[in-house]
Amino acid sequence: MNIPRTSLPRVVIIGGGFGGIALAKKLSKKGLQVVLLDKHNYHTFQPLLYQVSTGGLEPDSIAYPIRKILQNHPNFYFRLAKVRRINSSDKILITNIGTIKFDYLVLATGSQTNFFGNKELKKQSMAMKSVPQSLNLRSLILQNFEKALLTDDLHKRDALMNFVIVGGGPTGVELAGALAEIKKGILPKDYPDLDTRRAQIHLIQSGDRILKDMSERASEKAEQFLEKLGVQIWKNTRVTNYDGKTVTTKTDLVFETATLVWAAGVHGVTIKGLSAKNLLAPGNRLKVDAFHKVIGVEDIYAIGDIACMETKDWPNGHPMMAQPAIQQGESLGDNLVRLLADKPLLPFVFRDKGSMATVGRNKAVVDMKNIRFQGVFAWFVWMFVHLFFLIGFRNRMVVFVNWVYNYVRFDREARLIIRPFKKDYSRFRD
Amino acid sequence: MNIPRTSLPRVVIIGGGFGGIALAKKLSKKGLQVVLLDKHNYHTFQPLLYQVSTGGLEPDSIAYPIRKILQNHPNFYFRLAKVRRINSSDKILITNIGTIKFDYLVLATGSQTNFFGNKELKKQSMAMKSVPQSLNLRSLILQNFEKALLTDDLHKRDALMNFVIVGGGPTGVELAGALAEIKKGILPKDYPDLDTRRAQIHLIQSGDRILKDMSERASEKAEQFLEKLGVQIWKNTRVTNYDGKTVTTKTDLVFETATLVWAAGVHGVTIKGLSAKNLLAPGNRLKVDAFHKVIGVEDIYAIGDIACMETKDWPNGHPMMAQPAIQQGESLGDNLVRLLADKPLLPFVFRDKGSMATVGRNKAVVDMKNIRFQGVFAWFVWMFVHLFFLIGFRNRMVVFVNWVYNYVRFDREARLIIRPFKKDYSRFRD
Repeated sequence: MNIPRTSLPRVVIIGGGFGGIALAKKLSKKGLQVVLLDKHNYHTFQPLLYQVSTGGLEPDSIAYPIRKILQNHPNFYFRLAKVRRINSSDKILITNIGTIKFDYLVLATGSQTNFFGNKELKKQSMAMKSVPQSLNLRSLILQNFEKALLTDDLHKRDALMNFVIVGGGPTGVELAGALAEIKKGILPKDYPDLDTRRAQIHLIQSGDRILKDMSERASEKAEQFLEKLGVQIWKNTRVTNYDGKTVTTKTDLVFETATLVWAAGVHGVTIKGLSAKNLLAPGNRLKVDAFHKVIGVEDIYAIGDIACMETKDWPNGHPMMAQPAIQQGESLGDNLVRLLADKPLLPFVFRDKGSMATVGRNKAVVDMKNIRFQGVFAWFVWMFVHLFFLIGFRNRMVVFVNWVYNYVRFDREARLIIRPFKKDYSRFRD
Repeated sequence: MNIPRTSLPRVVIIGGGFGGIALAKKLSKKGLQVVLLDKHNYHTFQPLLYQVSTGGLEPDSIAYPIRKILQNHPNFYFRLAKVRRINSSDKILITNIGTIKFDYLVLATGSQTNFFGNKELKKQSMAMKSVPQSLNLRSLILQNFEKALLTDDLHKRDALMNFVIVGGGPTGVELAGALAEIKKGILPKDYPDLDTRRAQIHLIQSGDRILKDMSERASEKAEQFLEKLGVQIWKNTRVTNYDGKTVTTKTDLVFETATLVWAAGVHGVTIKGLSAKNLLAPGNRLKVDAFHKVIGVEDIYAIGDIACMETKDWPNGHPMMAQPAIQQGESLGDNLVRLLADKPLLPFVFRDKGSMATVGRNKAVVDMKNIRFQGVFAWFVWMFVHLFFLIGFRNRMVVFVNWVYNYVRFDREARLIIRPFKKDYSRFRD
């Protein structure tokens, strides 16, 4: 891997998501050698992936080169690598680009879409956890409309224009809202020779309300906003399978569609050598103590989605979202510095700043600690929070220009099929 | 193909490049049915592809959805299709989405990279004529630097950091300049553990000057600008082969490189059924008369790169560039309308507005009819001309923001490997 071994203790971080980047920044100039490994050379701002899928934003605007984030950080090494195995007793990582010894290891591997073991579902449905996946979804949506034009079979045409989104969390809600706006504002103009009113957007939720991790008021309002946009919400409905044509559920409800987006859950990305059952909490997450140390092994830590710290307030671990990941990265960074200075460690305390989701072109729901609001003002808050957390001045500017343009013009210009999506290109799906 | 046959005469245009789009716009609201076919659902602004390759621009900023360009044009139909064969006697096109009858057919199929029949060269080298190709090149460049980090073999590392560009036309010159700027401004910061001074950019030209279609003064100045940037220019050098490692030439000069960009020529994209030798001029271009009618067949026209109109001023046809294509599209559009109104046709007259090429971050060379200039002012002219011709307000804004940012910060933030490039993924190369 060609990383010089110096007298500095070496921290290896696996994953350049919100947690890994926050940690790496904290460790800069602290007398440590930091090695960051990721399978992509960029950090992804996942909360806006649905806008890439729906042609509202360019992929490059929500991705940021990791090397650029950590330019001018001395003793920092980035390597584009996939980690194959962890040897925790010898403190060695085996990767596709060689092996590396670590003094401290931090897993910030995040989470991936959970298909609950259903292989057919996994093969046939679309996920939206990475930039390539989001681009695939964008291509598929556009290809379906192009195909719908070519058939006289009304049944087939409807299936091509129907979109089924499984999972009523923020991803599902935001995607459903964006698709509804496209149906209203863009399809009739782009496809005058197609009766686009027949396009349907179905949002399926297994529980009895969408946005179940937010307040009941937020759920209610989000449902209202979505219904006003024409989205069909199916609650208490559990999807059992999808064969590429028909979505089946636990009841006799079925949907015919060429596009199923699976946003019904994620689970942690574990690595061989550190995936024994006794280390894991439900959802494939590594159990960690209050200092993010993986319980049962030494000098190995976990932060972000992959980590599960069971506390009184959060008995099932913190939410698998950007905010806890960032705070955990910062907390662990401080603690590693304290550890090396022989100072006592400080247990992690999560400061929950609330959560939010946007619905359609100018509505959102926001839950904060002491205040909850919904509607247009919430949407402004949503926008500015997302612009603020986006990394990089250029990205902020470009996203802002796009948003203003899309808003004023009721448009989304990035409706381009740059690489056509074919279902069997499985190797292009991560 | 599901296009209604009406009483209006039907014009089918193959290709949504500069020529095809200019023609389609002219034919709007003129009592014709217009069917535009393209294998992509977007128009590509090819002059800026090199900026996509070098991480300066997002692909979406220089591509524009064809449906959007022709929204609100009545009797206009776009279909995403690949044309397999032309049956000129029955006036039928055979495509991957079915057959279509035409009253008038216009080939605006453009050109593709010409490897002069060398299959190994074609397989191993990179072209830059489409958005996916440009993204592949971007990925390869970045992957090479990531790989260079991993090897101790100095020879191999140099090969990974060397870039060989074959062809000293505007594409080769602009790409060489951009790579030189990256070498100077970005690599040392991104790869502090790599001696990036060893990276080399070679520009190979078979003739005795680069930019051979411009004035001698422009060639000289462009050479000076490139040399100042550290680009090595090899004139009178003809590349014979590239096996993926070694570039051989007609002399004993060889180059070791992992990246060969082939910008040494293009030839027309012909379609079966209309590719007989007697119809073609050198460079696989269809011979057309002064009204763009393909010589020897009725009701079939050709414009842009695929068309070769031999005139006194342009004995080998007009330059294969955007400007003639746009003018030809407009001229043919007017003539088709005149034809249907039984008015006499007007022969095409090319108004040469000159040509230009940019070199590095703030230099360019410009040849206009009565005035030639080079340097910083020429670069301003280059920028504004390109912004002006770019389609769409949003694209202009986003490109402008990126350019200002890149200029001020000496940066190019889109250095993302969204889809890793592997040489054998040949099906992803068009």
